[in-house]
Amino acid sequence: MLGSVKGPQDVKRLAVEELPRLAGEIRDLLVDSCAKYGGHLGPNLGVVELTIAVHRVFDSPADPVVWDTGHQAYVHKLLTGRASGFNALKQEGGLSGYPSQAESDHDFVENSHASTALSYADGLAKAFKLRGERDRTVVAVIGDGALTGGMAWEALNNIAAAKDLPVVIVVNDNGRSYSPTIGGLASHLSSLRVNRHYEDVLEYVKDKIGNVPVLYDALHGFKKGVKDVIAPQVMFEDLGLKYVGPIDGHDEQAMEAALRKARGFRGPVIVHALTQKGRGYAPAEDHDEDQFHSPGAFDRATGAEKPKGRIWTNVFSEELVRLGKERDDLVAITAAMLHPTGLNAFAEAYPDRIYDVGIAEQHALTSAAGLALGGMHPVVAVYATFLNRAFDQLLMDVALHRLPVTVVLDRAGVTGDDGASHNGMWDLSILQVVPGLRVAVPRDGDRLTELLREALEVSDGPTALRFPKGPVAEALDAVGRLGEMDVLRAPKGDPEGEHEAEPDVLLVGVGPMAQVCMDAAVLLDAQGIASTVVDPRWVKPLDEALVPAAKEHRLVAVVEDNGRVGGVGDAVARLLRDADVDVPVRTFGIPQEFLDHAKRAAILGRIGLTGQDLARQITEAVAMRAQSAEPARR
Amino acid sequence: MLGSVKGPQDVKRLAVEELPRLAGEIRDLLVDSCAKYGGHLGPNLGVVELTIAVHRVFDSPADPVVWDTGHQAYVHKLLTGRASGFNALKQEGGLSGYPSQAESDHDFVENSHASTALSYADGLAKAFKLRGERDRTVVAVIGDGALTGGMAWEALNNIAAAKDLPVVIVVNDNGRSYSPTIGGLASHLSSLRVNRHYEDVLEYVKDKIGNVPVLYDALHGFKKGVKDVIAPQVMFEDLGLKYVGPIDGHDEQAMEAALRKARGFRGPVIVHALTQKGRGYAPAEDHDEDQFHSPGAFDRATGAEKPKGRIWTNVFSEELVRLGKERDDLVAITAAMLHPTGLNAFAEAYPDRIYDVGIAEQHALTSAAGLALGGMHPVVAVYATFLNRAFDQLLMDVALHRLPVTVVLDRAGVTGDDGASHNGMWDLSILQVVPGLRVAVPRDGDRLTELLREALEVSDGPTALRFPKGPVAEALDAVGRLGEMDVLRAPKGDPEGEHEAEPDVLLVGVGPMAQVCMDAAVLLDAQGIASTVVDPRWVKPLDEALVPAAKEHRLVAVVEDNGRVGGVGDAVARLLRDADVDVPVRTFGIPQEFLDHAKRAAILGRIGLTGQDLARQITEAVAMRAQSAEPARR
Repeated sequence: MLGSVKGPQDVKRLAVEELPRLAGEIRDLLVDSCAKYGGHLGPNLGVVELTIAVHRVFDSPADPVVWDTGHQAYVHKLLTGRASGFNALKQEGGLSGYPSQAESDHDFVENSHASTALSYADGLAKAFKLRGERDRTVVAVIGDGALTGGMAWEALNNIAAAKDLPVVIVVNDNGRSYSPTIGGLASHLSSLRVNRHYEDVLEYVKDKIGNVPVLYDALHGFKKGVKDVIAPQVMFEDLGLKYVGPIDGHDEQAMEAALRKARGFRGPVIVHALTQKGRGYAPAEDHDEDQFHSPGAFDRATGAEKPKGRIWTNVFSEELVRLGKERDDLVAITAAMLHPTGLNAFAEAYPDRIYDVGIAEQHALTSAAGLALGGMHPVVAVYATFLNRAFDQLLMDVALHRLPVTVVLDRAGVTGDDGASHNGMWDLSILQVVPGLRVAVPRDGDRLTELLREALEVSDGPTALRFPKGPVAEALDAVGRLGEMDVLRAPKGDPEGEHEAEPDVLLVGVGPMAQVCMDAAVLLDAQGIASTVVDPRWVKPLDEALVPAAKEHRLVAVVEDNGRVGGVGDAVARLLRDADVDVPVRTFGIPQEFLDHAKRAAILGRIGLTGQDLARQITEAVAMRAQSAEPARR
Repeated sequence: MLGSVKGPQDVKRLAVEELPRLAGEIRDLLVDSCAKYGGHLGPNLGVVELTIAVHRVFDSPADPVVWDTGHQAYVHKLLTGRASGFNALKQEGGLSGYPSQAESDHDFVENSHASTALSYADGLAKAFKLRGERDRTVVAVIGDGALTGGMAWEALNNIAAAKDLPVVIVVNDNGRSYSPTIGGLASHLSSLRVNRHYEDVLEYVKDKIGNVPVLYDALHGFKKGVKDVIAPQVMFEDLGLKYVGPIDGHDEQAMEAALRKARGFRGPVIVHALTQKGRGYAPAEDHDEDQFHSPGAFDRATGAEKPKGRIWTNVFSEELVRLGKERDDLVAITAAMLHPTGLNAFAEAYPDRIYDVGIAEQHALTSAAGLALGGMHPVVAVYATFLNRAFDQLLMDVALHRLPVTVVLDRAGVTGDDGASHNGMWDLSILQVVPGLRVAVPRDGDRLTELLREALEVSDGPTALRFPKGPVAEALDAVGRLGEMDVLRAPKGDPEGEHEAEPDVLLVGVGPMAQVCMDAAVLLDAQGIASTVVDPRWVKPLDEALVPAAKEHRLVAVVEDNGRVGGVGDAVARLLRDADVDVPVRTFGIPQEFLDHAKRAAILGRIGLTGQDLARQITEAVAMRAQSAEPARR
């Protein structure tokens, strides 16, 4: 049946009796394709009926459907003619794991950072109003977790004020967006959730005392009051938003009825749908941690994930537990990412010293500032790309106050198959501008533990530490030190860099790119180009020892797994300029563009961050300079 | 009497009868000192009694008082021993206009970006709990406007969940934090505000029908229901926060009583204080625009501000009105800054096409993305430093989708007397990393109108335009063009730069720094150093014509009113490196540190962004290179 669904019009055409079969086929296909390559299975199993109902009630794309965190849009993709693409989900050249304008007119928003949908919807609805397109409705589907993000609040505040904007906000409330959600809103939603029969109770009580003559206002007050006791007052109504719910999100017909009612209001309205993450696939339903939020490839029959091996996150996770034992001033903060950041181990060991603040990176950083002001040393662990949400807070709330907060950035650099919005290619650039912040980039697991300890010893300002997604790099030991930098390769075996003849190239490898530099060095040797390889370990501030080291080479090459613009390469060039050292510098990193999804290794190859590519480009640069006049140096 | 107040203990010692006199003296001093140099008069006149009450009830600094947007902390400064500093408020070396750790142990938070206080308070309270400092209470004072910021929501959500944290949140509700506040929250607060006597009404209604036997729950429901009609349900209570109020914020004794009650809870509680901005000074009370939110120097008797002359904002404001007439797809967005950004003129001309979203920069950008998706061209006008709040939204929600949104950054570069958090010295750096974004920097008013038009003509991606605070620069006309760059000075009168003899230095002046380069060029002439001056106009992407131009000079100097790290200087250096042009580059800008407050001109002098300083440094660089070998060039 799914094969015959080419678009929403086909979904509308199905008889009600056929819908359970459609839902079943969708779930089968979701489980099959995620088992193959991994994917956001849990969230999508939870929105099957909800999405069918949305496409039966509204007219996408005339009625835009905006998915908050695009990872809940698989079913939407299936219903808009893309079922065949699911055999290569998230693979290079295949279907994106998020909405994509290139894939379909039904997709509007490609970003997958949370809590944005309501703002988009507000803007879209305002545009339609201004353009006189009055019959279009904007639908935004947002999880209960995403509602904890500040942006969602800002948008609700604005949407509530625009009484005539037809915006239907579907709250997909599974009570555990990434993991069990905490906070005042979560309690509030939960209290709404467990009291679904207040209308019946209200009728009963009204019957009992309905014959007492009271003022209209008092009766009205009584009605609302009873509702308030049996089911609490709905916060959204205080803000002036209409509220429909709660609805069983797996009862497709109930969802349709609620959505039709909501569509009829021609104003902003919240439809509160209760869903179950992982619904219909037992291993997901029973999965304690996160209902298969985003597993890697797994065995369909058992749900057993293929072992991942030891990843960077594991090293951080274990070391932080050790550090927590040594220091009782250590506290850890996560923004709804307890397991993905590896803080779950710290949480189990020290339950009083862990804070999950919800999808609220801004609050994470400023609450950390408060904790530090109060005498603690907070470790805030987030994915590198999500730190962008808290740049102002890191700058003004943490750094301006010189507070000892350590930010740990997981999934830094190219992450790959989650697409443009998940690559952590911005942090080394925006962090450069933060006064007083120190930034470390470990090249392997040993350096991760070493640098984490060093970062936590800093007491007069903030520190950041970043490492990539995936298996931890093999240990790469230093042959010497230069200032605080590790020398990984010193021509003629001279670790202090005091050579008789000048070597040609100084290779500066940032973190895991040190290995790429080592690979390139071997290839350069074969070309007769001698090279030194250093890993600065701390990339901000840069070690002053780089200046004399640069002077002893004909070319400096900096390699980083970060956008080329504003990163460590630019910082090295500036350091040398400011010291009036005009040795040519070449910088290698991620081209400053939004990258299409593919595996990390494939992307690194495509953008030239391999030993071979590096060696080739450096050979060319050296050859070119040999043709020109004697290099300018002092 | 104020002279005898050296700290909170002296405030506590005063008899209740003496407090009105204290309040009067405070208001006199506030008006006097703001009349002299300007300052945040309106907000501080509104918190006189509130602040007295806070310092009589709590024990600062054991009980930290965190002021959201530090500009409402003048009275706090007066009551903590700093009255004498008010004769040089915001002057170089004088008292800061914001809390300052260096000034007093009573000051905790120096950042003055809005909506942060609750997160700080959350962190401080958690730290105290972990350290066993159970008797400390944290007080956060936040305006109703700041509550519209997403961070405040994130914090409320967390504070509500921590039942045992003694955090007293004083909502300073003047109904118009910067200007009349809009949105669902504003309506909610306003409905609370106008219904202050519900307790009386409740008693009356209870008397009337109190003899009807009903279930306890129903009675309870009735009570809450009546409250709900007479005064609406309090949203904060839905979240699980205790609520006290509303209180007349100018009734010092009522405020004390409410604060004592709140302090007694030993858990999170909201005290809702109603205040009047500008209270007690008629010209402020009667000021329609913003109750003297932050006037410049003024005449104390009449309230008349000294004329400011024509500022950059005026040029933008007028041109946007003209453009709005030409194009009906133009819409404008402000984040609670309608007048300061000059959008008030557009709002008057096109009331349907202006959106004030509250202190909500994140929503401003993503709502703009939605408007652009819907076919409009939004102009988002904000202060440069506040764009940091919306970096992720500009990157992911606007740029990733290649949407035509124009961001206009006022108060860019050194702003000066508002201190570190208000300098707009970050934008040219963080904007560099945003793929597809184009950035323009006008050097004078004519270029502002020209570049604004060019920006609005871009339909395939976002644009940004930035200009400084203060009087618009005098027109500086071009003598030629080089690509899209303006040539302002071409040695030997050759506007196309085809000289017989090579000139020495290429000066690249970013926006208003072009004039500084022109000043330097004259001084360099006297040293026998010939220079070319160009203004790139668009600094991202840089014009490729810079590459051949650089090759014809011995040195390239880039000057910008932005942090030196990651700005246009780094971009020029990278452009040349990537083209294998190794002409030495020197970059001049704001040192990458948090600047103390002083006048803009004084700071520019201090950091060397003057023609004289520039000429001196360039002369040294040229001389040094003349001593070394023949420069490397190709």
